[in-house]
Amino acid sequence: MPRTTQVWCIVGQIKRLLLGKPIATEHQHHERLSRITALAVFSSDALSSVAYATEAILTMLLVAGAHALGLSMPIAVAIAFLLIIVVSSYRQTIRAYPKGGGGYIVSRDNLGDIPALIAAGALLVGYVLTVAVSISAGVAAITSLAGNWGFPQVREHAVPIALGFIVLVSIANLRGLKESGLIFSVPTYVFVVSMMGMIIFAITKNFFVGAAPVIHSIAPEIPEPGEAITLLLILRAFAAGCTALTGIEAISDGVPAFKSPEAKNASATLTMMAALLITMFLGITWLANAHHAVPNELSHETVVSQIARTTFGNGPVYVAIQIATATILILGANTAYADFPRLASFLSRDRFLPRQFSSRGDRLVFSNGILALGFFSAVLVIIFQANEIAMLPLYAVCVFVSFTLSQSAMVVRHLRIKAPRWQLGVMISGFGAFITLIVMLVQGITRFYEGAWLVLVIVPLMVIIFTSIHRHYNSVARQLSLEGADLPIALRRHTAVVLVSGIHRGVLPALQYGSSLAPDNVTAVYVNLDPDHTAKLQQRWSDWGCNVPLVVLESPYRSLITPLFNYIQELDARYDDDVLTVILPEFVPAHWWEHLLHNQTGFLLKAALMLNKNVVVTSVPYHLER
Amino acid sequence: MPRTTQVWCIVGQIKRLLLGKPIATEHQHHERLSRITALAVFSSDALSSVAYATEAILTMLLVAGAHALGLSMPIAVAIAFLLIIVVSSYRQTIRAYPKGGGGYIVSRDNLGDIPALIAAGALLVGYVLTVAVSISAGVAAITSLAGNWGFPQVREHAVPIALGFIVLVSIANLRGLKESGLIFSVPTYVFVVSMMGMIIFAITKNFFVGAAPVIHSIAPEIPEPGEAITLLLILRAFAAGCTALTGIEAISDGVPAFKSPEAKNASATLTMMAALLITMFLGITWLANAHHAVPNELSHETVVSQIARTTFGNGPVYVAIQIATATILILGANTAYADFPRLASFLSRDRFLPRQFSSRGDRLVFSNGILALGFFSAVLVIIFQANEIAMLPLYAVCVFVSFTLSQSAMVVRHLRIKAPRWQLGVMISGFGAFITLIVMLVQGITRFYEGAWLVLVIVPLMVIIFTSIHRHYNSVARQLSLEGADLPIALRRHTAVVLVSGIHRGVLPALQYGSSLAPDNVTAVYVNLDPDHTAKLQQRWSDWGCNVPLVVLESPYRSLITPLFNYIQELDARYDDDVLTVILPEFVPAHWWEHLLHNQTGFLLKAALMLNKNVVVTSVPYHLER
Repeated sequence: MPRTTQVWCIVGQIKRLLLGKPIATEHQHHERLSRITALAVFSSDALSSVAYATEAILTMLLVAGAHALGLSMPIAVAIAFLLIIVVSSYRQTIRAYPKGGGGYIVSRDNLGDIPALIAAGALLVGYVLTVAVSISAGVAAITSLAGNWGFPQVREHAVPIALGFIVLVSIANLRGLKESGLIFSVPTYVFVVSMMGMIIFAITKNFFVGAAPVIHSIAPEIPEPGEAITLLLILRAFAAGCTALTGIEAISDGVPAFKSPEAKNASATLTMMAALLITMFLGITWLANAHHAVPNELSHETVVSQIARTTFGNGPVYVAIQIATATILILGANTAYADFPRLASFLSRDRFLPRQFSSRGDRLVFSNGILALGFFSAVLVIIFQANEIAMLPLYAVCVFVSFTLSQSAMVVRHLRIKAPRWQLGVMISGFGAFITLIVMLVQGITRFYEGAWLVLVIVPLMVIIFTSIHRHYNSVARQLSLEGADLPIALRRHTAVVLVSGIHRGVLPALQYGSSLAPDNVTAVYVNLDPDHTAKLQQRWSDWGCNVPLVVLESPYRSLITPLFNYIQELDARYDDDVLTVILPEFVPAHWWEHLLHNQTGFLLKAALMLNKNVVVTSVPYHLER
Repeated sequence: MPRTTQVWCIVGQIKRLLLGKPIATEHQHHERLSRITALAVFSSDALSSVAYATEAILTMLLVAGAHALGLSMPIAVAIAFLLIIVVSSYRQTIRAYPKGGGGYIVSRDNLGDIPALIAAGALLVGYVLTVAVSISAGVAAITSLAGNWGFPQVREHAVPIALGFIVLVSIANLRGLKESGLIFSVPTYVFVVSMMGMIIFAITKNFFVGAAPVIHSIAPEIPEPGEAITLLLILRAFAAGCTALTGIEAISDGVPAFKSPEAKNASATLTMMAALLITMFLGITWLANAHHAVPNELSHETVVSQIARTTFGNGPVYVAIQIATATILILGANTAYADFPRLASFLSRDRFLPRQFSSRGDRLVFSNGILALGFFSAVLVIIFQANEIAMLPLYAVCVFVSFTLSQSAMVVRHLRIKAPRWQLGVMISGFGAFITLIVMLVQGITRFYEGAWLVLVIVPLMVIIFTSIHRHYNSVARQLSLEGADLPIALRRHTAVVLVSGIHRGVLPALQYGSSLAPDNVTAVYVNLDPDHTAKLQQRWSDWGCNVPLVVLESPYRSLITPLFNYIQELDARYDDDVLTVILPEFVPAHWWEHLLHNQTGFLLKAALMLNKNVVVTSVPYHLER
């Protein structure tokens, strides 16, 4: 079959070109990570949030005027404390779940299905937002750089650029990008070193020379001072800044990837990550205040870009910082490409998502999860026009829902297991759960109309979908279970019907097959749509009908299905102990596109016939040569 | 099967609601039309072109400044002469082809396949443009009216309104709108009477009172006079105005619909139509000059609306004229819904288009042709933003290609048949063919870059597609022909393979079927994707395998297809005198949407297996109850 092979080959080659050769199952890969590498692999998402968290706080405060911006530093300190609490709590989780304790697993283990599904829904939405926010922020770093180098119009193409990155990261993950050390280590450490360097350099410089204010290419719109600084404003700014915490749960998911002793190494890495995150976050917030950096909706230049440019000038160091920022943000998006498909596969394995999410593709990755993540994050980027700050309210609430559930689950676990020092555990996790619950409520209430309300719609909807799917699969499993089944008795009798649309070479093999299956009980059936054609067929049938009797069905409304179904039901009712086989002669064109030139009746008929009980559908092909 | 019936019912009900109940074949409808009714039925397309032809001339002339507009009247007179020539020629066609002589039929009869296919391609494109142009012009009449009544913003929604009309007309035709007298007669005669009334009233009024110039809501952009009036300019304006001739061929297509004597009645109706068309076209052009009406790209008010408003004021008479204009334009589009599907069905019957175009749907109409026409005209409306004037160059060339071919074919026919007075026939048709050829060249050359070039791309491409399809169908027919075929000998031996993905109730009927088909020669085959699962299956097989031997295939790359294909080829090679049946157990969910929750592997497998020669594919369903 050279030609059919040809078609498969072309499709295959395109796939190979994009995704690479298939990987054998035995090559499934388990790299164990040192602390240094693990920090790079698991922290890009969390560390990269310093690229937008300070800006999110300033954006909220700016509403009340420039004089409110000074509040950003105390707010950042409060967020740093929150981070310490949550990290302490996650250290507990790491010790308790050395095989990996994501929000879904921990909740399911301790709180039951519904809380686990809420956590899962919030996490899945959160991962989609991780991609959309990180990629958009990465593009903002690039367009800020381009703007300062004389290409401000690049900003207008932020959406297509962001979509391009999503496609790229999706393809890389479909190929099965390894979470291997080098790819992650270099950009992560370049980012950490350049950010730390900038902070130290700038603080030193400011100490001796004094801090220069940012000079904007287009002056930002700053509201007249006058609006009072209310508690609500402060809470909103705090809620916005809490996006600095996104991504810190990643290590608790990935404990098994650490070198032995896994839990200890993971725990230490988490602490290290928290220390770096807090230092950079506070440093950038401090510098933003010192240099009067403000979110600029007109030039679209990011706050980090403003600081870097003011500190180092428009030269190579600034360029390096912007590129490092963009790179770590895109790596941050990439971690969601590991997390989302893995969580989807857990849900699928537990029968809460379609089976397709748990099958590994050619390249050993969960391809369907990757495609779903890419699709939904692209949709978000388009809806929000690649504006990461606008996506943050929804993002933050999702992340804090899973924080709260995960820590509450740890409280229940401590109370249940009563391991040594369980009282301390309850206190840490309980305090963490309480605080994150409060923060979640603050976020949900103060930013309700800015997107937080969506969580109230999407997450319950997802839980409903999860449980419906679960019910369906369980019902199927029960129905298919062999428990109490009887072995089938041998078939006594076959009845065969050959559907014909005329008499030609393509029909003969089907008639032959039908005669052999049910020699005494086979009919050919034809639906009369054109009396002339029918008369001609009846004439030729005696010569070519292979002794199979021809039944002509009338169809006043030119429908094929209705008269056929009636005839089949009538035939089926005739015997009790038989099986009815409907035989469709199908000619297969030599080239696949030629299918378009033939009525797709056969295909529709097959689908419709399968809905009839007790009917077996058989296709007898006749292959055209050219 | 209550639930499956349910699904069919819902789909069916939606279809019924939109399209009405199916119509029995015996109710195929043949209304014979009187001259008065036929004039209405066949002329809406032709007569409605007066709504834009004058404006098309003025638009061209305006390029040279306001002083050039006076040339519109002599140009219109020249076009009127051209119309008389073409109409005289078509009277010949009517007499020669009393069964209907469209460009395709007449060309195929006299000039051969390739000219006929060129005519067919040009006609099909022309019909699509008829819909796009007429609907857009109808919407322009409506938006002009709305603009004068204080809703100029309606114009901004011209594209969605036009698309809405296309959907409406398409659905009406899918329902099987009868070309019945009343629907057409009322608007056509209202239009004719109101236009004629306006012309007579305005000319009389202008004679006694003097003509008032049009007062524009937004002054039109008129270029500074200065550019010379060149021959090219005049030719371009002439070419643009020739769109007044579009639609006049409709009667020659529809001769059999006339009351007896068909040819005589059709011929007289054509003459009547030409007289009306010329009177209205010259009248409107004269009035446009008298009132200094000019195409206004800023207010988007049509020239006819300007004249009507200036003549009658902004009151009820003006409203009636605009509504009559819009209605006849939409009816004009509707005639293409009869012509396009009919021509497509001729082409399909002659094997130049896919078979699907010649099958009548539930409602006895050529549904696929209607859908194709609706789709392509919607695409044009979107591309050209419902600007009918911009579509005219392409439209005019298409129409004149078919005029030229159709009349050339009549010349050949006269020379061949030599009926009485054939010399006169040759002269009339030959002169017509020559003139329309010249006009076609003028249009093609002077408006090449405005869209006429597209004809040079699209029409040859269509001819290539037509002939490729023709070759394919002929090749299939030859291959399927029973000539020289041998009657098949009885099948000696069956080999059966049951593909299993596990062991459950859904598999048992398939095993039972396989055993019955080939008791000594059946195997169950399973592809090992997960060793644990395989081991479990092998364990349970002895209890539940129905004595069918289980073959486990290894698949290092987790592909199902490759190992299966290899195994099947191996099996197939084993015996020469057998037929190999691959049996797929398929469980059918109780609700159609549940299909999404199950791997579509079965479907893909079936498609792939059908590509193997000598393999019969059988689906044994197992129906889930809930």
